[in-house]
Amino acid sequence: MNKFLIAIVVMAALAASAFGDLVSERRNLMPVPKEVSFAEGKLRIDKDFSFAFTGHSDGRLSAYLSRVLKRLEGRTLLEFSRLAEKSKDEATLMIDVDSGGNAIPKLGDDESYELRVESDAVVLNAETSVGAMRGLETLLQLVEADEDGFYFPLVSIKDEPRFAWRGLMIDSARHFQPIEVIKRNLDAMAAVKLNVLHWHLTEDQGFRPESKKFPELHLMGSDGDFYTQEEMKEIVRYAADRGIRVMPEFDMPGHATAWLVSHPEIASGPGPYEIERRPGVFNPTLDPTNPKTYKLLEKFLAEMAKIFPDRYMHIGGDENEGKQWDANQKIQAFMKKNGLKNNHELQTYFNRKILKILTKNGKVMMGWDEIFQPDLPKEIVIHSWRGQKALADAAKQGYTGVLSNGYYIDLMHPASEHYKVDPLPADSPLNDEEKKRVLGGEATMWAEWVTPETIDSRIWPRTAAIAERFWSPQKVNEPDDMYRRLNVISIRLEELGLTHIKNQDQLLRRISNGQDIGPLKKLVGLVAPVRGYRRYQILKQSMLFPLTGLIDASQADPADAMAFDKAVEAFLESEDKSRSAATLLVFFDDWKSTASELRVLKKDAPALQNASVLPDDLEKLSAIGREAVESLRTGKASDDDWRTAKLAEIDEIRKQKAGVEWRVIGSMLRLVRAE
Amino acid sequence: MNKFLIAIVVMAALAASAFGDLVSERRNLMPVPKEVSFAEGKLRIDKDFSFAFTGHSDGRLSAYLSRVLKRLEGRTLLEFSRLAEKSKDEATLMIDVDSGGNAIPKLGDDESYELRVESDAVVLNAETSVGAMRGLETLLQLVEADEDGFYFPLVSIKDEPRFAWRGLMIDSARHFQPIEVIKRNLDAMAAVKLNVLHWHLTEDQGFRPESKKFPELHLMGSDGDFYTQEEMKEIVRYAADRGIRVMPEFDMPGHATAWLVSHPEIASGPGPYEIERRPGVFNPTLDPTNPKTYKLLEKFLAEMAKIFPDRYMHIGGDENEGKQWDANQKIQAFMKKNGLKNNHELQTYFNRKILKILTKNGKVMMGWDEIFQPDLPKEIVIHSWRGQKALADAAKQGYTGVLSNGYYIDLMHPASEHYKVDPLPADSPLNDEEKKRVLGGEATMWAEWVTPETIDSRIWPRTAAIAERFWSPQKVNEPDDMYRRLNVISIRLEELGLTHIKNQDQLLRRISNGQDIGPLKKLVGLVAPVRGYRRYQILKQSMLFPLTGLIDASQADPADAMAFDKAVEAFLESEDKSRSAATLLVFFDDWKSTASELRVLKKDAPALQNASVLPDDLEKLSAIGREAVESLRTGKASDDDWRTAKLAEIDEIRKQKAGVEWRVIGSMLRLVRAE
Repeated sequence: MNKFLIAIVVMAALAASAFGDLVSERRNLMPVPKEVSFAEGKLRIDKDFSFAFTGHSDGRLSAYLSRVLKRLEGRTLLEFSRLAEKSKDEATLMIDVDSGGNAIPKLGDDESYELRVESDAVVLNAETSVGAMRGLETLLQLVEADEDGFYFPLVSIKDEPRFAWRGLMIDSARHFQPIEVIKRNLDAMAAVKLNVLHWHLTEDQGFRPESKKFPELHLMGSDGDFYTQEEMKEIVRYAADRGIRVMPEFDMPGHATAWLVSHPEIASGPGPYEIERRPGVFNPTLDPTNPKTYKLLEKFLAEMAKIFPDRYMHIGGDENEGKQWDANQKIQAFMKKNGLKNNHELQTYFNRKILKILTKNGKVMMGWDEIFQPDLPKEIVIHSWRGQKALADAAKQGYTGVLSNGYYIDLMHPASEHYKVDPLPADSPLNDEEKKRVLGGEATMWAEWVTPETIDSRIWPRTAAIAERFWSPQKVNEPDDMYRRLNVISIRLEELGLTHIKNQDQLLRRISNGQDIGPLKKLVGLVAPVRGYRRYQILKQSMLFPLTGLIDASQADPADAMAFDKAVEAFLESEDKSRSAATLLVFFDDWKSTASELRVLKKDAPALQNASVLPDDLEKLSAIGREAVESLRTGKASDDDWRTAKLAEIDEIRKQKAGVEWRVIGSMLRLVRAE
Repeated sequence: MNKFLIAIVVMAALAASAFGDLVSERRNLMPVPKEVSFAEGKLRIDKDFSFAFTGHSDGRLSAYLSRVLKRLEGRTLLEFSRLAEKSKDEATLMIDVDSGGNAIPKLGDDESYELRVESDAVVLNAETSVGAMRGLETLLQLVEADEDGFYFPLVSIKDEPRFAWRGLMIDSARHFQPIEVIKRNLDAMAAVKLNVLHWHLTEDQGFRPESKKFPELHLMGSDGDFYTQEEMKEIVRYAADRGIRVMPEFDMPGHATAWLVSHPEIASGPGPYEIERRPGVFNPTLDPTNPKTYKLLEKFLAEMAKIFPDRYMHIGGDENEGKQWDANQKIQAFMKKNGLKNNHELQTYFNRKILKILTKNGKVMMGWDEIFQPDLPKEIVIHSWRGQKALADAAKQGYTGVLSNGYYIDLMHPASEHYKVDPLPADSPLNDEEKKRVLGGEATMWAEWVTPETIDSRIWPRTAAIAERFWSPQKVNEPDDMYRRLNVISIRLEELGLTHIKNQDQLLRRISNGQDIGPLKKLVGLVAPVRGYRRYQILKQSMLFPLTGLIDASQADPADAMAFDKAVEAFLESEDKSRSAATLLVFFDDWKSTASELRVLKKDAPALQNASVLPDDLEKLSAIGREAVESLRTGKASDDDWRTAKLAEIDEIRKQKAGVEWRVIGSMLRLVRAE
């Protein structure tokens, strides 16, 4: 987008915002702390910036501080005395921690902190090292700049999380993600104060944890892409050093094809089995009636329990349609004999057996809604893909739960949609006691359509908005201000090695086949990947398909489309339409020339073959927009025939033929419908 | 640069090239094969592309092929049947290999191959698996596109390297580079057919290899940033799987501060020692007269010899100024007693002791020029930073050698300068027998000024030009065509995870502090980091200084400056100056507006404070350029006073105040001097 447009859009955004003072009160903080109070004045950051631990300190915290200072150095181009602590009297930053807390974080750990920036020093108080880590991230977010250099604004902050369980689930099974991907995402999680990595390790499409007891599981079930036990331990350590729990998931009894490649004898249907390459829900299911199943699981889960110290272990339990069970005479006979009336009861039978194994290993069971059964022990945790109501129902019956419905970031919805979903909505029917059972939420990065090259761009920056929902007070909920801060945090995440911004150009360079990517950048400013589960229908892609197309390069919140929305809003609301029309006409001119450029570009870029309709669409949108603006500007009401024809045209354009959808359609419809 | 400029510059480049047919004969191949012959016709690439091994095959080669096919899939957006071999009759690509060759590559391994693309199939023949790997990289470089899709042009290639030793030295000591950095650079090396990773592991500023015999060496000498033995073994494996040798270097007796942090007793001067944080040449030196020195080295080198199977081990040996030796009475007495006349003889005494240790461990000693001594065994390898003459002198006396003088990529010279340096220049005084002793060369990535974020941009794409010098026939030497192909290979390297392109924008986003990076991108299109060792003088930076400034974001061959050079050349040569002036005026207009934009941007970007003079410089260059063009265009000779004044102005601008140098100065001088 050119600078002229940016200037206009920024003005439009400010004009549209109804929370002027909040904009400044929130600065660039994300998640917004519980209590913040800024004062006049600045504490300058110069090369003499120094630190002292005035209470407890430990290796984990001082390493964290060192990394924080390194990020601050990288941003300010200053070299601090990062390696040596100063005396209390001399230090700029005083960190006063009561105790280290749990070296391996636990649910409910104290993460509170207080942070005061005064004119000559910064004081950070916390009960635990992890609380101090949360405060250090806030401190980094406070950094601002003016012509004289960098500074912290004077401020007083008291902060603690609203929910204790603030998670990100990463599916490493459908597409394998090397440990450096997991590590950089742990860094990003810590930056926005998330505290649970829910690690989805087994699926129909891959068995990723190394088992020393049953090496055939990972060797035959992973194409060689698995995590060694040493690597998994390293991730646990790495996460703990950032105050993050790691909860593994071993999905059962469904989603189990990859287990059965090496162990067809514990399947509910006849084998042999191959690693599943398609996306979807499949039939292969562990046999709950076979003692061998439990024998294997007992040993395997005990092995994993030693690697993952977290008290919770997720067993999935979702999407078992029971087709293999229905078709298996032996299983049917077993159900009859044991009085199990249906597949749900059979799965509950299975869950009880697993529960015993987990309990024996000191673990608490967690699973998706399907595992919920009112006579299971109250300690189990319900993970809800069904929604707040299912969660509230469980809470009423004494069960704790975590919400993921509304946080499926793989479905490519705008950040604002996730942002408005609350684990405990204002109209919750729960009483205070019951409310405590809603532990928090988890964003879920299902991995049908992500590779190490694109996964960051699916998680970030949107997950920062979700993290704010889990941490900040409920009243923090203005989408415009969220987006403003999201853009800042997005760039800051790059300091940690996240690739969500930079890999877009990389993908476009590959797609353009060496040509100037300018026109493609304009295109991905206006389109997003199709939302929801439509990708499955539009593009027939297996897990082996290269995820290097336009759909993979495009992102959920394309900037130019969002700017266009603002411009249309401003235009429709403006008194002087002939003046505000100018902004929109810049867009439409730009679209027209982009369309021509794209037509030239695609000649030598066969990777755009399935997107060849897009330049025509864009030119049509440009023409429709011009006509609409012209008729609104001149006040010459456009007739109904014109409107009907244009709406039909837009309806045709709206069909997602190339895996991407025009994110300007909503505003285009408003323009055409306006009178 | 805008499209108008690009079009003009491309035309200028074509007009300026005197090798029209070679441009097409070389297509995008880099390094250019020994013999290539293209024919009319295309072999289309579609989703049915398949392969078969018709001779030997092994896990290493089939994994390599699988990665190659995945890159091809990513580029073409096609899913092949990558997991299953086809029968010989059905396969598109037939790979016919005689034998696996050495699983751990050795100097002199056969890397030759023959590749034929015919209208219905591709046939790749090689003696060894590594030869086939080299051929597969060539095949990937052959991929082209037209409106109908991707294809291979019909071609017949016979290829083998000119030199057997084609290396890249990576200094992991001064700035630590995590193993994923080493891995992706190994992938890039294989893509341009380099075959030696020379791994510089110890320095004054860091001791990076884990020693189990002397853990204090890495624990006290590395700030915790070291490679575990498991990681080093993994790198050896990873490299071997790509046909690359790994030769470690343990620099001694100088460059040894980090050893002495834990072992001051083997120093030649009094301790204690701390890890060195400054750049430069330092005095701490191992004590060659102390038996403890050899006792430690004997155990340590034996330990390393087991981890690194390569026959060669590099002991550095450079830049020992002997100051600690001069000042040490005990050492002086030892020299007298043993008839060692000077420090050089003392170092040779030391080298002989080390040579014995290496020989005992089955290793051949390699070291920098300084180790050369005519009575050492002929097997040792001289690594020359001094140049071709030193190498030739050694060869005449029967010694083998490897050239690095001219390939110091840390010094930020343009690729074309490295490209013209030949290990065996056409005027070499050596006879055929002696020529064989010049084994090849190595690009050296010294790491005073690189971090994991910037190292790729210092190595690539320039090292691809050096790789071509080592592999291709001597006659392949046109810089314009090299640059044309370098731009293609540069984008292809991104498929392997290299960050040399994308991290530039990332750095600029950080520097701009959230502002639009457009003006900064224009700036880094015109400047390069200061060349040679001037960075040491201009910026006083320690090893702990953040390398996130403008100098770190800028690169050795800035594109717009190169385009400007072409435009100036075209203008000066053109008959019709009033017409060709237009192109230059576009540049000067652009510079002027960029200068204004930069002035606005730097207000909120304190990281640009030390670069605040650059907008003024740019505006001045723009004005001088306009005046020069105007006087040349109108034929109105500019007077000597004007010329003298402008040359003085340029001379002032030329001074590198911000760590970067204007890469347009040369062409500006030509313009001002032209009459």
